[in-house]
Amino acid sequence: MPKLKTKDKHIKKLAEIVKGPNSILYLKEDLLAYDCDGFTIHKHLPKAVVFPKDTEEVAAIVKYCDANNLPFLARGAGTGLSGGAIPLNGEVIISLVRMKRLISVDTENRRAVVEPGFVNLKLTNSISDRGYYYAPDPSSQYCCTIGGNVAENAGGAHCLKYGVTTNHILGLEVVLPNGEIIEISSDGIPDAPGYDLLGILTGSEGTLGIVTKITVRILKNPEEKQTVLAYFDKVSDGSHAVSDIISAGIVPAALEMMDKIAIEAVEAAAFPVGHPKDIEALLLIEVDGVSAGIDEQINQILEVCKRRNVREVKVAQDEQERGRWWANRKTGFGAMGAISPDYLVQDGVIPRSKLPEVLGRINQISEEFGLRIANIFHAGDGNLHPLVLFDAKKPGDTDKALKAGSACLKVCADVGGSITGEHGVGIEKKEEMRFIFSDEEIMAQTNVREVFNPNNLLNAGKLFPTPGRCIEMKSDVNEPLSS
Amino acid sequence: MPKLKTKDKHIKKLAEIVKGPNSILYLKEDLLAYDCDGFTIHKHLPKAVVFPKDTEEVAAIVKYCDANNLPFLARGAGTGLSGGAIPLNGEVIISLVRMKRLISVDTENRRAVVEPGFVNLKLTNSISDRGYYYAPDPSSQYCCTIGGNVAENAGGAHCLKYGVTTNHILGLEVVLPNGEIIEISSDGIPDAPGYDLLGILTGSEGTLGIVTKITVRILKNPEEKQTVLAYFDKVSDGSHAVSDIISAGIVPAALEMMDKIAIEAVEAAAFPVGHPKDIEALLLIEVDGVSAGIDEQINQILEVCKRRNVREVKVAQDEQERGRWWANRKTGFGAMGAISPDYLVQDGVIPRSKLPEVLGRINQISEEFGLRIANIFHAGDGNLHPLVLFDAKKPGDTDKALKAGSACLKVCADVGGSITGEHGVGIEKKEEMRFIFSDEEIMAQTNVREVFNPNNLLNAGKLFPTPGRCIEMKSDVNEPLSS
Repeated sequence: MPKLKTKDKHIKKLAEIVKGPNSILYLKEDLLAYDCDGFTIHKHLPKAVVFPKDTEEVAAIVKYCDANNLPFLARGAGTGLSGGAIPLNGEVIISLVRMKRLISVDTENRRAVVEPGFVNLKLTNSISDRGYYYAPDPSSQYCCTIGGNVAENAGGAHCLKYGVTTNHILGLEVVLPNGEIIEISSDGIPDAPGYDLLGILTGSEGTLGIVTKITVRILKNPEEKQTVLAYFDKVSDGSHAVSDIISAGIVPAALEMMDKIAIEAVEAAAFPVGHPKDIEALLLIEVDGVSAGIDEQINQILEVCKRRNVREVKVAQDEQERGRWWANRKTGFGAMGAISPDYLVQDGVIPRSKLPEVLGRINQISEEFGLRIANIFHAGDGNLHPLVLFDAKKPGDTDKALKAGSACLKVCADVGGSITGEHGVGIEKKEEMRFIFSDEEIMAQTNVREVFNPNNLLNAGKLFPTPGRCIEMKSDVNEPLSS
Repeated sequence: MPKLKTKDKHIKKLAEIVKGPNSILYLKEDLLAYDCDGFTIHKHLPKAVVFPKDTEEVAAIVKYCDANNLPFLARGAGTGLSGGAIPLNGEVIISLVRMKRLISVDTENRRAVVEPGFVNLKLTNSISDRGYYYAPDPSSQYCCTIGGNVAENAGGAHCLKYGVTTNHILGLEVVLPNGEIIEISSDGIPDAPGYDLLGILTGSEGTLGIVTKITVRILKNPEEKQTVLAYFDKVSDGSHAVSDIISAGIVPAALEMMDKIAIEAVEAAAFPVGHPKDIEALLLIEVDGVSAGIDEQINQILEVCKRRNVREVKVAQDEQERGRWWANRKTGFGAMGAISPDYLVQDGVIPRSKLPEVLGRINQISEEFGLRIANIFHAGDGNLHPLVLFDAKKPGDTDKALKAGSACLKVCADVGGSITGEHGVGIEKKEEMRFIFSDEEIMAQTNVREVFNPNNLLNAGKLFPTPGRCIEMKSDVNEPLSS
C-alpha cells in the first residue's frame, strides 16, 4: 500500500476509514478538479475528497468529521447548476461515485433500488428490455447521478406529465450529519405514516443528510409516443398555444418552447435540424400513452396550433426524426457556446398564463443591460430558462449578466412565480430567496435544518440567505468564503 | 350581547378574541359533542371550543394559548378515523367550520383557494359547470373539510391515478404554534426552492401548525369514464387480475376490491345492486381520459379478467348504472352495521404482489381471534381496509378486535408495507408506528415536531409512540390521558 504524502492527521485518519490512499485525494493538483461544480462563478478548494464504497464508510467519515469539527459535503457527478457541491468552507468532499450499484429491480411492484452514484440514464438502459423506464430526465441524465437528482429534486423535459424526482422516490437510506443511519420509506404508500421526511430530504440540496441508498419508482414504457414540432411567427401565438393545449385537457409528456435566439444557437450547434431562422418561437410537443388515444390528441394539438396562426406544424414521421428533434433541443444550454463566449442560465417559474407578459419584461431587461437573452423553457409547467449571453473577458460583463439574471428572477417572483424550477438554490440564488420568502419563512426552514444538522458542518452557507439584521438566528450560519 | 356563564378567565379572554359568546362553547353539555371524532374508542372533554372567523382570530387564539400554557388543537368536520382531533389533554379546540369560503377559482392556471372549513365535495360542485373538479375523494367527501384533508393527507378511491391530497396542494397559509402566520407555496412549481415545508405540513395530523388558507390544484374533467364490474369465484384470481391490469400498463382512475363478507354487508345496506352472494371477490374498475383511448383499455381489462377465470364481467351501460355501483361501494364501511353490531376499520398498505399472501394471513387472524374480518380495499395501490366485526357488548370483544386489527397491521408491515394508507396514525396507531420505525427514525420525526411546536401544546400525544426506556428524548411527550 503506497504511503500518504502528508502529515495531516485528519487526512491520515480519513484514509484509514476508506481503507487506503486510492480512496482519498488531498494534494492541491488533485483537488483543483473539485473546486466547483456546474456553477463555475464561485470556487474554493476542498480539504480532501474521499471515495467511500459503502454506507458504513460514509457513516464513519461523517462521524469523524462531526467529532473533529471538520466541514463536509456530499458530491455526485458535479453537474449541479447552482453550486450545491462547491466546498465554500474547505469541506471534506464525500464523493459517492464509487457507490454506483443497481441493487435490485422489482418490476412486479414497479420499483428499483440504486446506490447514489448510479447514473440516471443507466437505470432506464438497464430495464428497458423488460419494458420499463425511470421518468425524471434532466438534460444531464447521461452523466448525472440519481443521488444528485435526489439532492436537487431534479426535473427534466418529461416532468410535465410524470412529475419531478420527488414524485418517483419511494425510500431513502440516509446518513444523518451525526453519522446515524436511518431508513425512510413510503414504499409506494399513498399516505405514509409520520412526517414526510422523504419529501423534506428530497430537494434539500445536501444540507440535511447524505443519501446512501434510493428506492425509486419505475414506469412501464408507454405504448406509443407522438411528437409535434410547430413554428410560430409570433412569440405570443406560441405562448397562447401552450395555454390552449393544457386548457383542452391534454397533458403532454413534454411541452417545450424555444425563442429566436435559442433557435439560432441550437442550429449553430452539434445537431441542427433546419429550423427556420426568422420565426419567433417553436414548440416541441410530445404525447404518450395507449395507442388508441394518441391520434385524437395529436389532432387536437394541430387544431390549436392552426387557430394560433402557426406557420408550419408537423408530426415526427419515425423514431429517427423524433430523436433528432430531441437531440437538437437537449443541446440547448451548451449550444449557447456557438453564439456567445459565455452564458449564464437562469431558472424561473411563472404561472403559465403570464408567459407573454414575462417574455416581454425579459426583453426589456435584455435592452436595459445591453445583453442578449435567449429563452428555452419547459413551457407546459411555466419553467423558464433565460440564458444571459455575455463575455467574461469584457470588464464588468459578468457582473452585468449576474444582475440581469437576478432581474429575470425578480420578474418571475413578482408575477406570483418562483426563483427556481429545477436547478436549485445552492450558492447562486441564496439572496433571491428573499424575493419569495419573508424572514419568518426562511427561519422556519433554517430551524428545520438545525434539527438535522445542529453543528452546521454539512454543506453550510447554501440554500438560505445570510440572515439580515432584523432576523435573530438560533445559530450562526457560516458565511461563504469568497474564492 | 349575552353574558358568559363562567368565571374562568381563559374562557372570558378567548370569548373576547372571537368577539362574543356565540363563537365559543364551554359548558359540559355543549362540549360532549367534541369529546371524540370518527375514532370513538378514546374520549376526552375539551376545555372549550372556539369558532374563529379569520386567520387573525386563529393567530390570536394560538398566541393566547401559547402564552398561558393551554393545550390546543384544530378540528374540521370531525370525520377523522384515527383520533387526530380528540382533545386528549383537555385542549382548547379551534373549530375551523366557520372559515368556509371559496376565496377564488383560477381555471387558467388550474388552482383554487379555499378556507380550511370548506367541504371537499363543494369544491367540485362549485366548478363542475366550468368543466373542472378537485381530485381527492375520501368516502366522507360530502361532509369532510379540505383543512382536515390536508391534516390527514386524505386519499380516496380515485387516488390511484391522481394521487392523494399532498399531490394537489399548491400553497398553504399556516398559523404556527407560536401564533406566527407564514405562507408556504409551491405555486404549482415542479421543484419549489427551500425545504418541502408544504410536504411536511400536509399529513402532519395537526401537530405542526394550523392551516388557515389552502391553494389547491383543480383538474379538467376527463372527456370520458368507463366502469367495469367483475365477479370472481376465487380471491386469488381477483388479486392476480389486479396485478395483471397494472402490468398491462393501464393506470385505472380507480381499482377497488371487496371480499365475500364485504359484499354481504353492502348488499344488506342502503344501496344493494344485486351482487351474487356466493362469489369470493369483486373488482370495481374505472378508466378515464380522452375518449379515443378508453375502449381499448376496457377491452384489455375484460381480457385480463377472462384470463383470470372471471365468473361475470360487465361495463356500466350509463351514468345511472355507474352511479349505483359507486354508491354501493361507498357505503362500504357503514354497511358493516347491517351485519354486525360494531366494527373496527383498519388501514394497512402492502406491495400489490403480496395481496394473495396477506389476505390468507388476515383469514388466519380472523380464525385465531374468532372474529369475522371483511376486506374492502383500494387494490390498485395495495391499500387494504380490513374491517374487524365485533360486539362491544360482549365482554372482551372490543379488546380482541383491537388486537386483531393490530395483528393485521403487523402482517402488512412484515411484508414490506405500512400501517396506514390514508386514515392517519392519530391516537389509534401510535404504538404500531414501532412496526415500521426504529427509535432513531421516530426521534428524527419528533425532533422536527419540536422545531415547529417546541412547547408541545399543539395536539400533543398523537402520531408518535411514547418513547420507550431505550430512547432519550429532548423533551417530554405528553402522555395521553385515558378517558
